[in-house]
Amino acid sequence: MKCRRCKDKGKTEKAIIFLPHHNLSLCKDCFLAWYEKRLDETIKKMDMITKKDKIMVAVSGGKDSLALWYALTRLGYEADGLYINLGIDERNYSSTSGEKAEILSKRLNRPLYVIEVKKQFGKGIPDLNKLTKQPACSICGLIKRYFINKVALENGYTCVATGHNLDDEVATLFSITLSWDIDSLIRQLPILPEKEGFVRKVKPLIGFTEKENLLYCLLQRIDYIREECPLSTGVKTIFYKNLLNRVEQKSPGTKLRFYFNFQKKLHPLLPGQIIPPLHSCSICGQPTTSYDICAFCRFKQRVKHSLQT
Amino acid sequence: MKCRRCKDKGKTEKAIIFLPHHNLSLCKDCFLAWYEKRLDETIKKMDMITKKDKIMVAVSGGKDSLALWYALTRLGYEADGLYINLGIDERNYSSTSGEKAEILSKRLNRPLYVIEVKKQFGKGIPDLNKLTKQPACSICGLIKRYFINKVALENGYTCVATGHNLDDEVATLFSITLSWDIDSLIRQLPILPEKEGFVRKVKPLIGFTEKENLLYCLLQRIDYIREECPLSTGVKTIFYKNLLNRVEQKSPGTKLRFYFNFQKKLHPLLPGQIIPPLHSCSICGQPTTSYDICAFCRFKQRVKHSLQT
Repeated sequence: MKCRRCKDKGKTEKAIIFLPHHNLSLCKDCFLAWYEKRLDETIKKMDMITKKDKIMVAVSGGKDSLALWYALTRLGYEADGLYINLGIDERNYSSTSGEKAEILSKRLNRPLYVIEVKKQFGKGIPDLNKLTKQPACSICGLIKRYFINKVALENGYTCVATGHNLDDEVATLFSITLSWDIDSLIRQLPILPEKEGFVRKVKPLIGFTEKENLLYCLLQRIDYIREECPLSTGVKTIFYKNLLNRVEQKSPGTKLRFYFNFQKKLHPLLPGQIIPPLHSCSICGQPTTSYDICAFCRFKQRVKHSLQT
Repeated sequence: MKCRRCKDKGKTEKAIIFLPHHNLSLCKDCFLAWYEKRLDETIKKMDMITKKDKIMVAVSGGKDSLALWYALTRLGYEADGLYINLGIDERNYSSTSGEKAEILSKRLNRPLYVIEVKKQFGKGIPDLNKLTKQPACSICGLIKRYFINKVALENGYTCVATGHNLDDEVATLFSITLSWDIDSLIRQLPILPEKEGFVRKVKPLIGFTEKENLLYCLLQRIDYIREECPLSTGVKTIFYKNLLNRVEQKSPGTKLRFYFNFQKKLHPLLPGQIIPPLHSCSICGQPTTSYDICAFCRFKQRVKHSLQT
C-alpha cells in the first residue's frame, strides 16, 4: 500500500499505517506531519490554548500524555509536565512510569513537577484503598484532580492539558449515555473553562485514537510505560472500549462520529451547567463546593483517622 | 430456585425462569400473571390504548406480535390481526408465518386481515429488491407502513399495535445514538399519536425482552415461526442486539435503563417534532408529505416501469 499524501505529491513512499476511519494510508513522515497538523487544527478550531498560554501537561508516563507533551512542544507551545506518583506496584508501574516522564522532560528540556502520593499520605493508592474501602479509581481521581489544579495554580500555569484520547472519551460518553445521566452529559466537553480557583482544562487529543498516539510515540522514539495500571483490570471502561472497537471495526468512523456529533448536535440542546457556589476549604484554601472542608482534605482526615484506629 | 411470588404467598413452586434485570424468579403461573399485569400496566401508564379502542395488531407470525395479540385479548382488549405476506422464501418463511397467524386468529376467534405483496406487485420482496435495487428492508418497511395504516383506517380501527420488543427498540435507539441523529431521536417514542390520515401506533411490548415474549408463547402454547427473516442476516440491528446482550449480561438492567431513561430524561429536552404539511396522494388518496404522489405509489410506478423495460 502506498502513502496517499506522498502519492498526491508525486512521490511513492510505502505506507506504514492505514487509518480506515479517515480512509487514509500514510508513510512515516506523512503520518507525523498529519498528526501534528491535526492536533494544531483541533486546538485552534476548539479555542483550547494559544501560544501565549503557559501549559501544564498532566503526564502519566503512558503513550497518550507523553505524545501530547512532545507534540505540543514541537508545535511551539510552552508546555511543562506534572507527574503524580501514585505508589502503585512500584517496580513495575509507578517508578517506571515516573522514569519515562523524566526522560522526556530532559529530552524536551522542560521542567517536570513531581507529586508523590506516598509522601502526602504515607501510603500509595492500593493501601489507601484497603484502608478506606473507597474504590481505587475514585481515590486516584480525587488525588489527581486536586494536585493537578493546585500545582498548576501555584506555579502560574494558565491551562492544564490531559492526554485523554478518542477511545477514552468515547467509552466514557457511551457509559453515561447508557443511563442518560444528563448532568454528566453536560460535562462531557473537551474544554472545562477556567473558573474562580480552577484552572482551564483541555483535552487536545480527543481526535486521536490510542493506536495513533502509540504510533506517534514509536515513530518519535518516545519511551512510554507499556503496562496498564494493574488496578484498572476489569474496569467497565475497558469492557466498553472493547465493545466499541467491535463497532468501529464494522463501521469505521463510528467513534469519531459518536464523539463529535455529540458535541455538535446533542450538547447544544442540553441545559446549561449549574455551577454550585464555591467556597475556600478551611484547611487547604482550595476551592470547594462544600461549606467547610474540601473532598481531598476530608479524605486525608479519613486516612489519618483510619491509621489511628 | 424457588418462585419469588409464590414464596411471598407462602407457596413453594419451582421457578422456571430467572429475570436478572428484575432480580425475579418465577414459576409458570406467576410468570404468566406477571407478564399480563406488566403489559396492562405499561399500556395504562403510557396511555397507549383503552378498552374502548378497536385495535389492529400487526402480526408477522413471530413470537412477539403473536404474544401481543394473545395477551391483549386475554386482558379484554378488542384486537384483530393484520398479516402481510411478503412473499419471502414461501415454503420456509412467508407461508409458514401466515399459517401461524391464522392459527391464532382461529383460536382467539378474531378476524385476520391478509395482504399479499405478490398480489399487489406480481412479485415478492426478494424479486422487488432485485428489480428496483432498493434494499429489501427498506421496501419491506415502506409496504408494511402503507398497508398497516390503510387497512386500519379503511376498517375503522382506532389504533395499530406492533410487537416491537425492548431488544428491538434498544438496538434502534443505540444505532441512532451512535450518530446523534436528532430527528430520529425525536421519533423514538412508544406512541405515535393519530394525525390526519394516520392512525395512532403503539408499541405495548417495549417493557419485555425477546426472551420474555418467547417464554409467554411457549407457556401459552402459541405456535410461532422460529425462522428469522432470511433477508435480515447480517443486518446491523442484529449486530447491535448481540453487542447490547453482552452489556446486559455484565450489567443486568442496562437495556431497560437505556430505553426508559431516554424517554424520561433525554426526550423532554429534545425540540418538538416538525411535522411537514400533509397532502392526499393523487393516485391512492393516502396522506403523504409529497405534493403529488405518495412514496408507495411512486415505488409501484417504479416497479411497473422496470417490468416494462
